[in-house]
Amino acid sequence: MEVIIAGAGSIGLLLGSFLSEAKMHVTLFVRQEEQANLINAEGIRRIGQNGEEDVFRVKATTDISKLSTEGLWIIAVKYSGLRGLLSQMKEADVKNPVLFVQNGIGHLDLAFETDIPQIAFATVEHGALRTDGRTVSHNGTGMLTIAIGRGDASLFKPIEQASSVRFPVRHLADAEYVLLRKVLINCMINPLTAILQVENGELLTNSYCYELYKALYEELMNVFPELRQSLSLESVSDVCRNTARNKSSMLADRSAGRPMEIETIVTAVLRKAQSRGKSLPLLSMLEKMLYALDEKGAT
Amino acid sequence: MEVIIAGAGSIGLLLGSFLSEAKMHVTLFVRQEEQANLINAEGIRRIGQNGEEDVFRVKATTDISKLSTEGLWIIAVKYSGLRGLLSQMKEADVKNPVLFVQNGIGHLDLAFETDIPQIAFATVEHGALRTDGRTVSHNGTGMLTIAIGRGDASLFKPIEQASSVRFPVRHLADAEYVLLRKVLINCMINPLTAILQVENGELLTNSYCYELYKALYEELMNVFPELRQSLSLESVSDVCRNTARNKSSMLADRSAGRPMEIETIVTAVLRKAQSRGKSLPLLSMLEKMLYALDEKGAT
Repeated sequence: MEVIIAGAGSIGLLLGSFLSEAKMHVTLFVRQEEQANLINAEGIRRIGQNGEEDVFRVKATTDISKLSTEGLWIIAVKYSGLRGLLSQMKEADVKNPVLFVQNGIGHLDLAFETDIPQIAFATVEHGALRTDGRTVSHNGTGMLTIAIGRGDASLFKPIEQASSVRFPVRHLADAEYVLLRKVLINCMINPLTAILQVENGELLTNSYCYELYKALYEELMNVFPELRQSLSLESVSDVCRNTARNKSSMLADRSAGRPMEIETIVTAVLRKAQSRGKSLPLLSMLEKMLYALDEKGAT
Repeated sequence: MEVIIAGAGSIGLLLGSFLSEAKMHVTLFVRQEEQANLINAEGIRRIGQNGEEDVFRVKATTDISKLSTEGLWIIAVKYSGLRGLLSQMKEADVKNPVLFVQNGIGHLDLAFETDIPQIAFATVEHGALRTDGRTVSHNGTGMLTIAIGRGDASLFKPIEQASSVRFPVRHLADAEYVLLRKVLINCMINPLTAILQVENGELLTNSYCYELYKALYEELMNVFPELRQSLSLESVSDVCRNTARNKSSMLADRSAGRPMEIETIVTAVLRKAQSRGKSLPLLSMLEKMLYALDEKGAT
Protein backbone atom coordinates (compact mmCIF):
# COMPACT_ATOMS: atom_id res chain seq x y z
CA MET A 1 0.00 0.00 0.00
CA GLU A 2 1.45 3.36 -1.11
CA VAL A 3 0.86 6.41 1.07
CA ILE A 4 1.94 9.93 0.13
CA ILE A 5 2.02 12.40 2.99
CA ALA A 6 2.21 16.06 2.02
CA GLY A 7 3.84 18.05 4.81
CA ALA A 8 6.43 16.86 7.31
CA GLY A 9 5.45 18.87 10.35
CA SER A 10 4.65 17.13 13.64
CA ILE A 11 1.49 15.46 12.32
CA GLY A 12 2.99 14.48 8.96
CA LEU A 13 5.97 12.84 10.67
CA LEU A 14 3.80 11.16 13.29
CA LEU A 15 1.39 9.67 10.73
CA GLY A 16 4.33 8.69 8.54
CA SER A 17 5.96 6.81 11.41
CA PHE A 18 2.85 4.86 12.40
CA LEU A 19 1.85 4.00 8.81
CA SER A 20 5.40 2.91 8.05
CA GLU A 21 5.34 0.81 11.22
CA ALA A 22 2.16 -0.81 9.81
CA LYS A 23 4.18 -1.84 6.73
CA MET A 24 2.88 0.77 4.33
CA HIS A 25 5.20 2.42 1.80
CA VAL A 26 5.34 6.00 2.91
CA THR A 27 6.63 8.89 0.80
CA LEU A 28 6.78 12.37 2.30
CA PHE A 29 6.19 15.23 -0.10
CA VAL A 30 7.93 18.28 1.39
CA ARG A 31 8.96 21.76 0.27
CA GLN A 32 12.57 21.91 1.50
CA GLU A 33 15.18 19.89 -0.39
CA GLU A 34 17.24 19.82 2.80
CA GLN A 35 14.47 18.13 4.77
CA ALA A 36 13.85 15.62 1.96
CA ASN A 37 17.54 14.69 1.94
CA LEU A 38 17.63 14.34 5.72
CA ILE A 39 14.58 12.05 5.77
CA ASN A 40 15.83 9.97 2.83
CA ALA A 41 19.17 9.51 4.56
CA GLU A 42 18.05 8.94 8.14
CA GLY A 43 14.32 8.19 8.18
CA ILE A 44 11.72 9.47 10.61
CA ARG A 45 12.73 9.34 14.27
CA ARG A 46 9.82 9.01 16.71
CA ILE A 47 10.38 9.55 20.43
CA GLY A 48 7.75 7.79 22.50
CA GLN A 49 6.18 8.82 25.78
CA ASN A 50 8.74 6.88 27.80
CA GLY A 51 11.64 8.32 25.85
CA GLU A 52 12.07 5.25 23.61
CA GLU A 53 13.32 6.05 20.09
CA ASP A 54 12.26 4.33 16.88
CA VAL A 55 13.42 5.04 13.36
CA PHE A 56 11.29 4.38 10.27
CA ARG A 57 12.77 4.31 6.78
CA VAL A 58 10.57 6.30 4.43
CA LYS A 59 11.11 8.16 1.17
CA ALA A 60 10.87 11.89 0.74
CA THR A 61 10.80 14.18 -2.28
CA THR A 62 10.15 17.80 -3.23
CA ASP A 63 9.16 16.83 -6.79
CA ILE A 64 5.46 16.16 -7.26
CA SER A 65 6.09 14.48 -10.65
CA LYS A 66 8.09 11.75 -8.94
CA LEU A 67 5.18 10.65 -6.74
CA SER A 68 3.29 7.44 -7.37
CA THR A 69 -0.01 7.86 -9.20
CA GLU A 70 -1.28 4.98 -7.07
CA GLY A 71 -2.03 5.05 -3.40
CA LEU A 72 -3.53 7.36 -0.88
CA TRP A 73 -2.61 10.99 -0.22
CA ILE A 74 -2.67 12.44 3.26
CA ILE A 75 -2.50 16.23 3.34
CA ALA A 76 -0.81 17.25 6.58
CA VAL A 77 0.18 20.84 5.77
CA LYS A 78 -1.27 23.70 7.78
CA TYR A 79 -4.43 25.41 6.58
CA SER A 80 -2.33 28.40 5.56
CA GLY A 81 -0.38 26.20 3.10
CA LEU A 82 -3.39 24.35 1.71
CA ARG A 83 -4.39 26.59 -1.22
CA GLY A 84 -0.89 26.52 -2.64
CA LEU A 85 -0.63 22.76 -2.34
CA LEU A 86 -4.05 22.12 -3.89
CA SER A 87 -3.25 24.20 -6.95
CA GLN A 88 0.05 22.35 -7.29
CA MET A 89 -1.87 19.06 -7.11
CA LYS A 90 -4.38 20.26 -9.68
CA GLU A 91 -1.58 21.17 -12.04
CA ALA A 92 -0.03 17.74 -11.55
CA ASP A 93 -3.48 16.25 -12.14
CA VAL A 94 -3.48 14.26 -8.92
CA LYS A 95 -6.61 12.09 -8.82
CA ASN A 96 -5.65 9.82 -5.92
CA PRO A 97 -7.91 9.61 -2.88
CA VAL A 98 -7.01 12.37 -0.41
CA LEU A 99 -7.32 12.48 3.38
CA PHE A 100 -7.25 15.99 4.89
CA VAL A 101 -5.97 16.30 8.48
CA GLN A 102 -6.00 20.10 9.03
CA ASN A 103 -7.18 21.77 12.21
CA GLY A 104 -10.38 23.76 12.05
CA ILE A 105 -13.07 23.71 9.37
CA GLY A 106 -11.77 26.23 6.85
CA HIS A 107 -10.37 23.46 4.65
CA LEU A 108 -13.74 21.75 4.20
CA ASP A 109 -14.89 24.13 1.46
CA LEU A 110 -11.44 24.20 -0.15
CA ALA A 111 -11.43 20.39 -0.34
CA PHE A 112 -14.89 20.16 -1.89
CA GLU A 113 -14.01 22.84 -4.46
CA THR A 114 -11.31 20.56 -5.94
CA ASP A 115 -12.12 17.94 -8.54
CA ILE A 116 -10.48 15.22 -6.46
CA PRO A 117 -13.01 12.36 -6.64
CA GLN A 118 -12.31 10.68 -3.28
CA ILE A 119 -12.06 12.88 -0.21
CA ALA A 120 -11.96 12.12 3.49
CA PHE A 121 -11.27 14.21 6.57
CA ALA A 122 -9.64 13.28 9.83
CA THR A 123 -9.26 14.85 13.24
CA VAL A 124 -6.06 14.10 15.12
CA GLU A 125 -6.01 14.07 18.91
CA HIS A 126 -2.40 13.00 19.37
CA GLY A 127 0.03 15.24 21.18
CA ALA A 128 3.01 15.66 18.86
CA LEU A 129 5.91 18.06 18.62
CA ARG A 130 8.47 18.20 15.83
CA THR A 131 11.90 18.76 17.33
CA ASP A 132 13.99 18.69 14.14
CA GLY A 133 13.51 17.99 10.42
CA ARG A 134 13.06 14.25 10.93
CA THR A 135 12.12 13.87 14.61
CA VAL A 136 8.72 13.92 16.22
CA SER A 137 8.06 13.61 19.92
CA HIS A 138 4.85 11.63 20.54
CA ASN A 139 3.59 13.29 23.70
CA GLY A 140 0.14 11.83 23.95
CA THR A 141 -1.91 9.13 22.31
CA GLY A 142 -5.23 10.20 20.87
CA MET A 143 -7.79 9.08 18.39
CA LEU A 144 -7.47 9.52 14.64
CA THR A 145 -11.09 9.90 13.52
CA ILE A 146 -11.74 9.52 9.81
CA ALA A 147 -14.93 10.53 8.02
CA ILE A 148 -15.67 10.34 4.30
CA GLY A 149 -16.36 13.57 2.45
CA ARG A 150 -17.16 12.11 -0.95
CA GLY A 151 -16.40 9.02 -3.00
CA ASP A 152 -15.64 5.47 -2.03
CA ALA A 153 -15.06 4.93 1.68
CA SER A 154 -13.28 1.59 1.12
CA LEU A 155 -10.26 3.42 -0.32
CA PHE A 156 -9.45 4.79 3.15
CA LYS A 157 -9.87 1.45 4.93
CA PRO A 158 -6.14 0.61 4.93
CA ILE A 159 -5.50 3.40 7.41
CA GLU A 160 -8.04 1.93 9.79
CA GLN A 161 -6.20 -1.34 9.51
CA ALA A 162 -3.08 0.36 10.89
CA SER A 163 -5.00 0.99 14.13
CA SER A 164 -3.17 0.00 17.31
CA VAL A 165 -3.13 0.83 20.99
CA ARG A 166 -0.74 3.75 20.50
CA PHE A 167 -2.35 4.74 17.21
CA PRO A 168 -6.08 4.12 17.49
CA VAL A 169 -8.10 4.84 14.35
CA ARG A 170 -11.86 4.99 14.03
CA HIS A 171 -14.30 5.76 11.30
CA LEU A 172 -17.34 7.96 11.66
CA ALA A 173 -19.97 8.66 9.05
CA ASP A 174 -20.51 12.38 9.06
CA ALA A 175 -17.46 14.49 8.18
CA GLU A 176 -19.11 17.81 8.93
CA TYR A 177 -20.17 16.61 12.34
CA VAL A 178 -16.71 15.23 13.12
CA LEU A 179 -14.96 18.45 12.13
CA LEU A 180 -17.52 20.74 13.73
CA ARG A 181 -17.33 18.88 17.03
CA LYS A 182 -13.54 19.14 17.03
CA VAL A 183 -13.43 22.79 16.03
CA LEU A 184 -15.94 23.75 18.73
CA ILE A 185 -13.70 22.09 21.32
CA ASN A 186 -10.78 24.04 19.82
CA CYS A 187 -12.79 27.26 20.07
CA MET A 188 -13.43 26.63 23.74
CA ILE A 189 -9.81 25.85 24.57
CA ASN A 190 -7.45 27.54 22.12
CA PRO A 191 -8.29 31.26 22.16
CA LEU A 192 -8.49 31.56 25.96
CA THR A 193 -5.32 29.55 26.57
CA ALA A 194 -3.44 31.49 23.88
CA ILE A 195 -4.54 34.94 25.06
CA LEU A 196 -4.11 34.28 28.78
CA GLN A 197 -1.02 32.10 28.26
CA VAL A 198 -2.28 29.25 30.39
CA GLU A 199 -1.99 25.49 29.97
CA ASN A 200 -5.18 23.62 29.07
CA GLY A 201 -5.75 22.41 32.62
CA GLU A 202 -5.83 25.94 34.00
CA LEU A 203 -9.12 26.55 32.21
CA LEU A 204 -10.61 24.33 34.92
CA THR A 205 -8.44 25.27 37.91
CA ASN A 206 -8.24 29.05 37.49
CA SER A 207 -11.65 30.22 38.69
CA TYR A 208 -11.90 33.17 36.28
CA CYS A 209 -10.67 31.14 33.31
CA TYR A 210 -13.35 28.63 34.19
CA GLU A 211 -16.05 31.31 34.16
CA LEU A 212 -14.94 32.47 30.72
CA TYR A 213 -14.67 28.91 29.46
CA LYS A 214 -18.17 28.05 30.66
CA ALA A 215 -19.60 31.23 29.16
CA LEU A 216 -17.95 30.34 25.86
CA TYR A 217 -19.35 26.81 26.03
CA GLU A 218 -22.88 28.15 26.56
CA GLU A 219 -22.51 30.72 23.80
CA LEU A 220 -21.40 28.07 21.30
CA MET A 221 -24.00 25.52 22.32
CA ASN A 222 -26.75 28.07 21.82
CA VAL A 223 -25.66 28.44 18.21
CA PHE A 224 -24.97 24.73 17.61
CA PRO A 225 -27.61 23.06 19.83
CA GLU A 226 -27.47 19.83 17.80
CA LEU A 227 -24.08 19.15 19.38
CA ARG A 228 -25.06 19.76 22.97
CA GLN A 229 -25.81 16.12 23.63
CA SER A 230 -22.63 14.66 22.20
CA LEU A 231 -20.51 17.54 23.47
CA SER A 232 -21.35 18.03 27.13
CA LEU A 233 -19.42 20.57 29.18
CA GLU A 234 -18.02 17.58 31.05
CA SER A 235 -16.67 15.99 27.88
CA VAL A 236 -14.83 19.19 26.90
CA SER A 237 -13.51 19.46 30.44
CA ASP A 238 -12.23 15.90 30.07
CA VAL A 239 -10.19 17.07 27.08
CA CYS A 240 -8.75 19.86 29.27
CA ARG A 241 -7.95 17.38 32.04
CA ASN A 242 -6.38 14.85 29.68
CA THR A 243 -4.16 17.56 28.20
CA ALA A 244 -3.82 19.56 31.42
CA ARG A 245 -0.09 20.24 31.13
CA ASN A 246 -0.18 20.79 27.36
CA LYS A 247 -0.11 24.07 25.52
CA SER A 248 -2.94 24.36 23.01
CA SER A 249 -1.81 24.58 19.39
CA MET A 250 -2.56 28.30 19.35
CA LEU A 251 -0.56 28.94 22.50
CA ALA A 252 2.29 26.83 21.12
CA ASP A 253 2.21 28.88 17.91
CA ARG A 254 2.12 32.14 19.85
CA SER A 255 4.97 31.07 22.13
CA ALA A 256 7.06 30.10 19.11
CA GLY A 257 6.30 33.38 17.33
CA ARG A 258 4.36 31.63 14.57
CA PRO A 259 1.03 32.93 13.27
CA MET A 260 -1.87 31.23 15.04
CA GLU A 261 -4.52 29.29 13.08
CA ILE A 262 -7.20 31.85 13.81
CA GLU A 263 -9.02 31.84 10.51
CA THR A 264 -9.80 28.13 10.16
CA ILE A 265 -10.58 27.61 13.84
CA VAL A 266 -12.26 30.81 15.04
CA THR A 267 -13.24 32.92 12.04
CA ALA A 268 -14.70 29.89 10.26
CA VAL A 269 -16.94 29.13 13.25
CA LEU A 270 -18.03 32.77 13.46
CA ARG A 271 -18.97 32.61 9.77
CA LYS A 272 -20.90 29.41 10.34
CA ALA A 273 -22.81 31.08 13.17
CA GLN A 274 -23.49 34.07 10.96
CA SER A 275 -24.89 31.81 8.24
CA ARG A 276 -27.36 30.62 10.89
CA GLY A 277 -28.25 34.23 11.64
CA LYS A 278 -26.59 34.00 15.06
CA SER A 279 -23.81 35.97 16.70
CA LEU A 280 -21.07 34.84 19.10
CA PRO A 281 -20.02 38.05 20.86
CA LEU A 282 -17.58 36.42 23.26
CA LEU A 283 -15.82 34.36 20.60
CA SER A 284 -15.87 37.34 18.28
CA MET A 285 -14.03 39.44 20.81
CA LEU A 286 -11.51 36.67 21.42
CA GLU A 287 -10.98 36.51 17.65
CA LYS A 288 -10.05 40.20 17.56
CA MET A 289 -7.67 39.75 20.48
CA LEU A 290 -5.98 36.83 18.71
CA TYR A 291 -5.58 38.83 15.51
CA ALA A 292 -4.24 41.73 17.59
CA LEU A 293 -1.63 39.39 19.11
CA ASP A 294 -0.72 38.03 15.69
CA GLU A 295 -0.37 41.54 14.31
CA LYS A 296 1.92 42.65 17.10
CA GLY A 297 4.09 39.56 16.61
CA ALA A 298 5.87 37.35 19.05
CA THR A 299 6.10 38.28 22.73
CA MET B 1 2.55 75.07 55.10
CA GLU B 2 2.68 71.49 56.43
CA VAL B 3 1.92 68.61 54.07
CA ILE B 4 1.75 64.98 55.15
CA ILE B 5 1.95 62.46 52.34
CA ALA B 6 0.90 58.91 53.20
CA GLY B 7 2.62 56.46 50.90
CA ALA B 8 6.01 56.83 49.23
CA GLY B 9 5.40 55.00 45.96
CA SER B 10 6.00 56.76 42.66
CA ILE B 11 3.17 59.28 43.12
CA GLY B 12 3.91 59.95 46.79
CA LEU B 13 7.56 60.68 46.02
CA LEU B 14 6.70 62.77 42.97
CA LEU B 15 4.19 64.95 44.83
CA GLY B 16 6.57 65.20 47.77
CA SER B 17 9.34 66.47 45.51
CA PHE B 18 7.25 69.12 43.79
CA LEU B 19 5.58 70.37 46.98
CA SER B 20 8.95 70.51 48.72
CA GLU B 21 10.30 72.41 45.73
CA ALA B 22 7.41 74.87 46.28
CA LYS B 23 8.71 75.48 49.84
CA MET B 24 6.16 73.37 51.67
CA HIS B 25 7.20 71.30 54.70
CA VAL B 26 6.69 67.74 53.54
CA THR B 27 6.54 64.71 55.82
CA LEU B 28 6.16 61.27 54.29
CA PHE B 29 4.21 58.76 56.35
CA VAL B 30 5.42 55.30 55.30
CA ARG B 31 5.16 51.73 56.52
CA GLN B 32 8.78 50.58 56.32
CA GLU B 33 11.22 51.91 58.92
CA GLU B 34 14.00 51.32 56.41
CA GLN B 35 12.42 53.58 53.82
CA ALA B 36 11.76 56.29 56.44
CA ASN B 37 15.42 56.21 57.49
CA LEU B 38 16.60 56.38 53.89
CA ILE B 39 14.39 59.37 53.09
CA ASN B 40 15.31 61.18 56.34
CA ALA B 41 18.99 60.67 55.59
CA GLU B 42 19.08 61.36 51.86
CA GLY B 43 15.83 63.06 50.84
CA ILE B 44 13.76 62.42 47.74
CA ARG B 45 15.71 62.14 44.50
CA ARG B 46 13.77 63.12 41.38
CA ILE B 47 15.15 62.30 37.94
CA GLY B 48 13.75 64.60 35.28
CA GLN B 49 12.91 63.90 31.68
CA ASN B 50 16.34 65.03 30.50
CA GLY B 51 18.11 62.96 33.12
CA GLU B 52 18.71 65.88 35.50
CA GLU B 53 18.69 64.92 39.18
CA ASP B 54 17.31 66.99 42.04
CA VAL B 55 17.24 66.15 45.73
CA PHE B 56 14.60 67.45 48.14
CA ARG B 57 15.04 67.27 51.90
CA VAL B 58 11.85 66.02 53.51
CA LYS B 59 10.99 64.22 56.71
CA ALA B 60 9.65 60.71 56.94
CA THR B 61 8.16 58.64 59.74
CA THR B 62 6.35 55.37 60.36
CA ASP B 63 4.71 56.70 63.53
CA ILE B 64 1.34 58.36 63.00
CA SER B 65 1.45 59.93 66.48
CA LYS B 66 4.48 61.98 65.47
CA LEU B 67 2.68 63.72 62.63
CA SER B 68 1.60 67.35 62.83
CA THR B 69 -2.05 67.89 63.67
CA GLU B 70 -1.89 70.91 61.38
CA GLY B 71 -1.59 70.87 57.63
CA LEU B 72 -2.91 68.93 54.73
CA TRP B 73 -2.84 65.17 54.21
CA ILE B 74 -2.34 63.63 50.80
CA ILE B 75 -3.15 59.95 50.65
CA ALA B 76 -0.99 58.38 47.96
CA VAL B 77 -1.24 54.70 48.89
CA LYS B 78 -2.79 52.24 46.46
CA TYR B 79 -6.49 51.47 46.70
CA SER B 80 -5.61 48.07 48.15
CA GLY B 81 -3.92 49.78 51.12
CA LEU B 82 -6.57 52.40 51.70
CA ARG B 83 -8.89 50.64 54.15
CA GLY B 84 -6.02 49.85 56.47
CA LEU B 85 -4.70 53.39 56.39
CA LEU B 86 -8.12 54.97 56.97
CA SER B 87 -8.75 52.87 60.05
CA GLN B 88 -5.31 53.79 61.36
CA MET B 89 -6.16 57.48 60.78
CA LYS B 90 -9.51 57.08 62.53
CA GLU B 91 -7.80 55.57 65.55
CA ALA B 92 -5.31 58.45 65.59
CA ASP B 93 -8.28 60.83 65.27
CA VAL B 94 -6.88 62.60 62.22
CA LYS B 95 -9.17 65.51 61.36
CA ASN B 96 -6.89 67.33 58.92
CA PRO B 97 -8.10 68.01 55.38
CA VAL B 98 -7.33 65.01 53.16
CA LEU B 99 -6.62 64.84 49.44
CA PHE B 100 -7.07 61.37 47.88
CA VAL B 101 -5.01 60.58 44.77
CA GLN B 102 -5.89 56.92 44.11
CA ASN B 103 -6.55 55.48 40.67
CA GLY B 104 -10.09 54.40 39.88
CA ILE B 105 -13.28 55.26 41.73
CA GLY B 106 -13.44 52.59 44.42
CA HIS B 107 -12.01 54.98 47.00
CA LEU B 108 -14.80 57.54 46.57
CA ASP B 109 -17.24 55.68 48.82
CA LEU B 110 -14.50 54.77 51.31
CA ALA B 111 -13.53 58.44 51.62
CA PHE B 112 -17.08 59.63 52.17
CA GLU B 113 -17.68 56.94 54.81
CA THR B 114 -14.98 58.47 57.02
CA ASP B 115 -15.74 61.32 59.40
CA ILE B 116 -12.95 63.43 57.94
CA PRO B 117 -14.58 66.85 57.51
CA GLN B 118 -12.57 68.16 54.53
CA ILE B 119 -12.08 65.84 51.58
CA ALA B 120 -10.78 66.40 48.08
CA PHE B 121 -9.86 64.07 45.23
CA ALA B 122 -7.23 64.40 42.57
CA THR B 123 -6.36 62.66 39.35
CA VAL B 124 -2.70 62.46 38.43
CA GLU B 125 -1.62 62.33 34.80
CA HIS B 126 2.13 62.38 35.36
CA GLY B 127 4.27 59.52 34.22
CA ALA B 128 6.29 58.42 37.24
CA LEU B 129 8.28 55.35 38.17
CA ARG B 130 9.85 54.65 41.55
CA THR B 131 13.28 53.15 41.02
CA ASP B 132 14.37 52.80 44.66
CA GLY B 133 13.10 53.75 48.13
CA ARG B 134 13.82 57.46 47.65
CA THR B 135 14.06 57.91 43.87
CA VAL B 136 11.32 58.70 41.39
CA SER B 137 11.80 59.02 37.66
CA HIS B 138 9.52 61.75 36.26
CA ASN B 139 8.77 60.34 32.82
CA GLY B 140 6.02 62.65 31.69
CA THR B 141 4.39 65.87 32.81
CA GLY B 142 0.64 65.76 33.25
CA MET B 143 -2.10 67.64 34.97
CA LEU B 144 -2.94 67.28 38.66
CA THR B 145 -6.68 67.91 38.74
CA ILE B 146 -8.20 68.59 42.15
CA ALA B 147 -11.89 68.54 42.99
CA ILE B 148 -13.55 69.07 46.36
CA GLY B 149 -15.52 66.20 47.83
CA ARG B 150 -16.81 67.96 50.94
CA GLY B 151 -15.83 70.81 53.23
CA ASP B 152 -13.94 74.01 52.62
CA ALA B 153 -12.24 74.22 49.22
CA SER B 154 -9.86 76.96 50.33
CA LEU B 155 -7.95 74.50 52.50
CA PHE B 156 -6.63 72.82 49.34
CA LYS B 157 -5.64 76.07 47.61
CA PRO B 158 -1.97 75.90 48.67
CA ILE B 159 -1.45 72.95 46.36
CA GLU B 160 -2.77 74.93 43.43
CA GLN B 161 -0.26 77.62 44.33
CA ALA B 162 2.52 75.09 43.77
CA SER B 163 1.48 74.86 40.13
CA SER B 164 4.30 75.19 37.60
CA VAL B 165 5.12 74.22 34.03
CA ARG B 166 6.42 70.83 35.05
CA PHE B 167 3.77 70.42 37.75
CA PRO B 168 0.55 71.97 36.48
CA VAL B 169 -2.35 71.96 38.93
CA ARG B 170 -5.96 72.81 38.20
CA HIS B 171 -9.18 72.82 40.14
CA LEU B 172 -12.48 71.48 38.89
CA ALA B 173 -15.80 71.61 40.67
CA ASP B 174 -17.26 68.16 40.39
CA ALA B 175 -15.23 65.36 42.00
CA GLU B 176 -17.45 62.57 40.71
CA TYR B 177 -17.18 63.86 37.18
CA VAL B 178 -13.39 64.24 37.43
CA LEU B 179 -12.90 60.72 38.74
CA LEU B 180 -15.44 59.12 36.44
CA ARG B 181 -13.87 60.73 33.38
CA LYS B 182 -10.44 59.49 34.40
CA VAL B 183 -11.58 55.97 35.26
CA LEU B 184 -13.40 55.60 31.94
CA ILE B 185 -10.20 56.51 30.12
CA ASN B 186 -8.43 53.93 32.29
CA CYS B 187 -11.08 51.34 31.40
CA MET B 188 -10.50 51.97 27.69
CA ILE B 189 -6.72 51.74 27.93
CA ASN B 190 -5.66 49.58 30.86
CA PRO B 191 -7.40 46.22 30.45
CA LEU B 192 -6.63 45.83 26.73
CA THR B 193 -3.00 46.91 27.09
CA ALA B 194 -2.51 44.65 30.12
CA ILE B 195 -4.13 41.56 28.56
CA LEU B 196 -2.54 41.95 25.12
CA GLN B 197 0.75 43.25 26.55
CA VAL B 198 0.93 46.25 24.25
CA GLU B 199 2.07 49.81 24.87
CA ASN B 200 -0.62 52.50 24.94
CA GLY B 201 0.13 53.67 21.41
CA GLU B 202 -0.50 50.23 19.95
CA LEU B 203 -4.20 50.59 20.74
CA LEU B 204 -4.24 53.02 17.81
CA THR B 205 -1.68 51.44 15.49
CA ASN B 206 -2.62 47.75 15.80
CA SER B 207 -5.76 47.47 13.68
CA TYR B 208 -7.41 44.79 15.84
CA CYS B 209 -6.54 46.54 19.09
CA TYR B 210 -8.11 49.64 17.61
CA GLU B 211 -11.33 47.76 16.80
CA LEU B 212 -11.56 46.47 20.36
CA TYR B 213 -10.69 49.88 21.79
CA LYS B 214 -13.39 51.59 19.71
CA ALA B 215 -15.97 48.96 20.65
CA LEU B 216 -15.10 49.52 24.31
CA TYR B 217 -15.41 53.28 23.89
CA GLU B 218 -18.88 52.90 22.37
CA GLU B 219 -19.98 50.44 25.04
CA LEU B 220 -18.91 52.79 27.84
CA MET B 221 -20.37 55.90 26.25
CA ASN B 222 -23.74 54.18 25.89
CA VAL B 223 -23.80 53.68 29.64
CA PHE B 224 -22.33 57.10 30.54
CA PRO B 225 -23.74 59.32 27.75
CA GLU B 226 -23.29 62.47 29.86
CA LEU B 227 -19.55 62.17 29.27
CA ARG B 228 -19.66 61.69 25.53
CA GLN B 229 -19.20 65.38 24.82
CA SER B 230 -16.25 66.01 27.11
CA LEU B 231 -14.72 62.62 26.36
CA SER B 232 -14.62 62.24 22.60
CA LEU B 233 -12.95 59.21 21.06
CA GLU B 234 -10.36 61.63 19.75
CA SER B 235 -9.56 62.93 23.23
CA VAL B 236 -8.97 59.41 24.55
CA SER B 237 -6.86 58.64 21.49
CA ASP B 238 -4.83 61.75 22.33
CA VAL B 239 -4.06 60.21 25.72
CA CYS B 240 -2.88 57.06 23.91
CA ARG B 241 -0.73 59.13 21.55
CA ASN B 242 0.75 61.24 24.34
CA THR B 243 1.68 58.10 26.27
CA ALA B 244 2.35 55.96 23.19
CA ARG B 245 5.55 54.34 24.47
CA ASN B 246 4.29 53.97 28.05
CA LYS B 247 2.99 50.87 29.71
CA SER B 248 -0.40 51.42 31.34
CA SER B 249 -0.39 51.05 35.12
CA MET B 250 -2.09 47.64 34.82
CA LEU B 251 0.45 46.38 32.31
CA ALA B 252 3.27 47.72 34.49
CA ASP B 253 1.79 45.90 37.49
CA ARG B 254 1.37 42.71 35.47
CA SER B 255 4.91 42.89 34.09
CA ALA B 256 6.28 43.39 37.59
CA GLY B 257 4.23 40.50 38.98
CA ARG B 258 2.15 42.80 41.19
CA PRO B 259 -1.64 42.49 41.48
CA MET B 260 -3.39 44.82 39.06
CA GLU B 261 -5.84 47.46 40.29
CA ILE B 262 -8.81 45.67 38.75
CA GLU B 263 -11.39 46.31 41.45
CA THR B 264 -11.22 50.08 41.71
CA ILE B 265 -10.80 50.66 37.97
CA VAL B 266 -12.89 47.97 36.25
CA THR B 267 -15.17 46.31 38.79
CA ALA B 268 -16.20 49.70 40.22
CA VAL B 269 -17.25 50.90 36.75
CA LEU B 270 -19.18 47.67 36.13
CA ARG B 271 -21.00 48.22 39.44
CA LYS B 272 -21.78 51.79 38.47
CA ALA B 273 -23.23 50.58 35.16
CA GLN B 274 -25.25 47.97 37.01
CA SER B 275 -26.68 50.62 39.32
CA ARG B 276 -27.93 52.31 36.14
CA GLY B 277 -29.52 49.04 35.03
CA LYS B 278 -26.99 48.70 32.21
CA SER B 279 -24.48 46.00 31.33
CA LEU B 280 -21.00 46.27 29.81
CA PRO B 281 -20.42 42.82 28.27
CA LEU B 282 -17.08 43.66 26.70
CA LEU B 283 -15.61 45.29 29.80
CA SER B 284 -17.08 42.52 31.92
CA MET B 285 -15.25 39.90 29.90
CA LEU B 286 -12.02 41.88 30.11
CA GLU B 287 -12.50 42.03 33.88
CA LYS B 288 -12.65 38.24 34.08
CA MET B 289 -9.54 37.93 31.93
CA LEU B 290 -7.69 40.37 34.20
CA TYR B 291 -8.71 38.46 37.32
CA ALA B 292 -7.66 35.22 35.57
CA LEU B 293 -4.22 36.73 34.90
CA ASP B 294 -3.95 37.93 38.49
CA GLU B 295 -4.96 34.50 39.77
CA LYS B 296 -2.35 32.72 37.67
CA GLY B 297 0.32 35.15 38.85
CA ALA B 298 3.23 36.72 37.08
CA THR B 299 4.21 35.56 33.58
